[in-house]
Amino acid sequence: MNIAILGFGTIGSGVYEIIQHAATDEVKNLHVTHILIRKGKDKTLPIMCDDIQTIFDDPQVDLIVETIGGIEPAHTHIMNAIQAKKHVVTANKAVVAKYLKDFNAAAVNNDVHFYYEASTGGGIPWIQGLEKALRIDAVDCIHGIFNGTSNYILDHMYRYQATFDDVLKDAQHLGYAEADPSADIDGFDISNKIRISASIAYNHPITDQFPIFGIRNILKEDVQFFSSKGFVVKLIAKTKRKGNTYDCIVEPMLFGKNQIEANIQENYNLISLHGDTIGELKFYGQGAGKLATANAVIQDIIDISENKSHRQCSFNNTMQYDSTLCNHDYILRCNPSLQSLFKELEYEPIAHSYFHIKHVEATKMHAILKEILECDPTAFMASIYEEEQSC
Amino acid sequence: MNIAILGFGTIGSGVYEIIQHAATDEVKNLHVTHILIRKGKDKTLPIMCDDIQTIFDDPQVDLIVETIGGIEPAHTHIMNAIQAKKHVVTANKAVVAKYLKDFNAAAVNNDVHFYYEASTGGGIPWIQGLEKALRIDAVDCIHGIFNGTSNYILDHMYRYQATFDDVLKDAQHLGYAEADPSADIDGFDISNKIRISASIAYNHPITDQFPIFGIRNILKEDVQFFSSKGFVVKLIAKTKRKGNTYDCIVEPMLFGKNQIEANIQENYNLISLHGDTIGELKFYGQGAGKLATANAVIQDIIDISENKSHRQCSFNNTMQYDSTLCNHDYILRCNPSLQSLFKELEYEPIAHSYFHIKHVEATKMHAILKEILECDPTAFMASIYEEEQSC
Repeated sequence: MNIAILGFGTIGSGVYEIIQHAATDEVKNLHVTHILIRKGKDKTLPIMCDDIQTIFDDPQVDLIVETIGGIEPAHTHIMNAIQAKKHVVTANKAVVAKYLKDFNAAAVNNDVHFYYEASTGGGIPWIQGLEKALRIDAVDCIHGIFNGTSNYILDHMYRYQATFDDVLKDAQHLGYAEADPSADIDGFDISNKIRISASIAYNHPITDQFPIFGIRNILKEDVQFFSSKGFVVKLIAKTKRKGNTYDCIVEPMLFGKNQIEANIQENYNLISLHGDTIGELKFYGQGAGKLATANAVIQDIIDISENKSHRQCSFNNTMQYDSTLCNHDYILRCNPSLQSLFKELEYEPIAHSYFHIKHVEATKMHAILKEILECDPTAFMASIYEEEQSC
Repeated sequence: MNIAILGFGTIGSGVYEIIQHAATDEVKNLHVTHILIRKGKDKTLPIMCDDIQTIFDDPQVDLIVETIGGIEPAHTHIMNAIQAKKHVVTANKAVVAKYLKDFNAAAVNNDVHFYYEASTGGGIPWIQGLEKALRIDAVDCIHGIFNGTSNYILDHMYRYQATFDDVLKDAQHLGYAEADPSADIDGFDISNKIRISASIAYNHPITDQFPIFGIRNILKEDVQFFSSKGFVVKLIAKTKRKGNTYDCIVEPMLFGKNQIEANIQENYNLISLHGDTIGELKFYGQGAGKLATANAVIQDIIDISENKSHRQCSFNNTMQYDSTLCNHDYILRCNPSLQSLFKELEYEPIAHSYFHIKHVEATKMHAILKEILECDPTAFMASIYEEEQSC
């Protein structure tokens, strides 16, 4: 099977490296014939080129790996590749979250495959694990630590009593966090991942219209306060289904110290699903990183080269967003003078500037937090995970 | 696809139930046409029969699910089924551990499939997860909590300060443990599971010639002593590879309280692998139980019905058993008068009748324990898990 790689950054070069070095029969069948690099960049390998049309026009190219990232030109390249009757494998969560249904329909129409295991959970065989579960079960809940950067930050703040800024610098130094870390710490990265997961689980394309709150405001003191109450905080994306309705949420969540989620260290990910007959399944591994993510890309390539189709989704199911499905208790930190903003809720003060809010719809709590943040931009909140409420 | 189920106990009836009730297209394609029950038993369903030859002779039967358990007649039935050109799916770890290579060769010769996802890790997609990892990586280490009964016992002893006997009775009452619990608590069940896993990982059939020590002797006081040192004890099966040599071991192992293994509760399983490029992957779920195990059986059936072959193993690799690969520190409890039996080892007493043995080959430590048990049949030991040493 002949492969063209678009982009030669971390993941693209990882894919190339594994294909050059892995010793298994499956990988030995794979050949990288083209690597697309940006115009003007040095062609350090003879197979590098800067004209994508050459790749689309080459009848020898069977499959295109998209590792450029972002929405454009990735979206256009993927569509053009599919229309040129090339299989496409991508690690790009943003473009998959937005265009999954379109890509899928185009692939079906052009009789090629479009796979994206690496887009969600990095090296973790999550997408296929979910697809397999759906062959038998309805999946009614998914939640997880889907982002390595934020987990690294929260884990180091917890275990080493460090400040957010110090750990973020450390993570940037180690290459775990970008120079602009917004996507990771504000929850947009994991919102894409839960959209992709929920779209598959519900066979319905999930939009980005759900509440998202990240960890930018977390203080060392918050982590210590939660710990004193027996909790560890993690940034979680979650979706829940009831019949033909679903809910999605991204927010910091508190886990008891002996729950598995509380013990996920460094930049590892953990993703859970709940199905009718399988019960609870959890998948743990490297959610990012060069070789682990490249491994997931190559798993998709091998499936295509061995003609092992993934589960077919039409994304034509009718599902309604219902903001009332996710209900939690919250611990909120804000200036005590702002209590009037949540006086309609059942709550009690549990320490200076910390409030325990009882059983409230996530959407409602996020709306109130938005008002609070306008007056106290340092405010922070985390929901309390309860096994009975969640999956 | 027409299916005959051999045996109608927990798993067999679970397979039947899911096929009758699941609403997915994949399962709707499956039809149970025969259920083999023991001669003399009531035929409560019209598709029940007690003559296996009818099943082998029926050209309509495509696939046979073996859920009888044990070595014979399961072994003969599976071989006869394969020779009758029927695909076979089994949940039977004992027969798979012993005859994996033979079954596999017979299936290849008869152009049918022989799959056994449910034999190891119950509902956890472990076998296929391992097979997928091997498409790209060499896997150099596998370890896990492979047995729900022993985990239930150890977890309840730890969290509720209970005695072994009380928890065992409780587990038997809940149906988590057999009336004769030896296979679970003495480590034989998980020795079959690590043999199956290692056979796949190394493409070499693994015999049962490696040290096995279970949890029959564990006292409430041991659990409390380990806890006071920061540890939680779990029954672990582990295999390690170095080039063309491998080691296997089954023994109680001590994990730091914030390691994931330490926080696996109730009767859940957790299985880990380490590969070159994927790094560490862990799979968590129900390692036993009617519907979860039946789910794994049906996953295999769907793969066969959709012609999605699993990774082909010849089991023809040449691997040598090397008892020196697994080295651990141990905590040993025995009558202090028996110190002469391990005086050659580096050790220190750490409490009355507890000794910390430093860095010793697992095989050697198990041999010494055997001598100790002859004089003090209540003795117990557990190794200390170290991430650097293990996977």
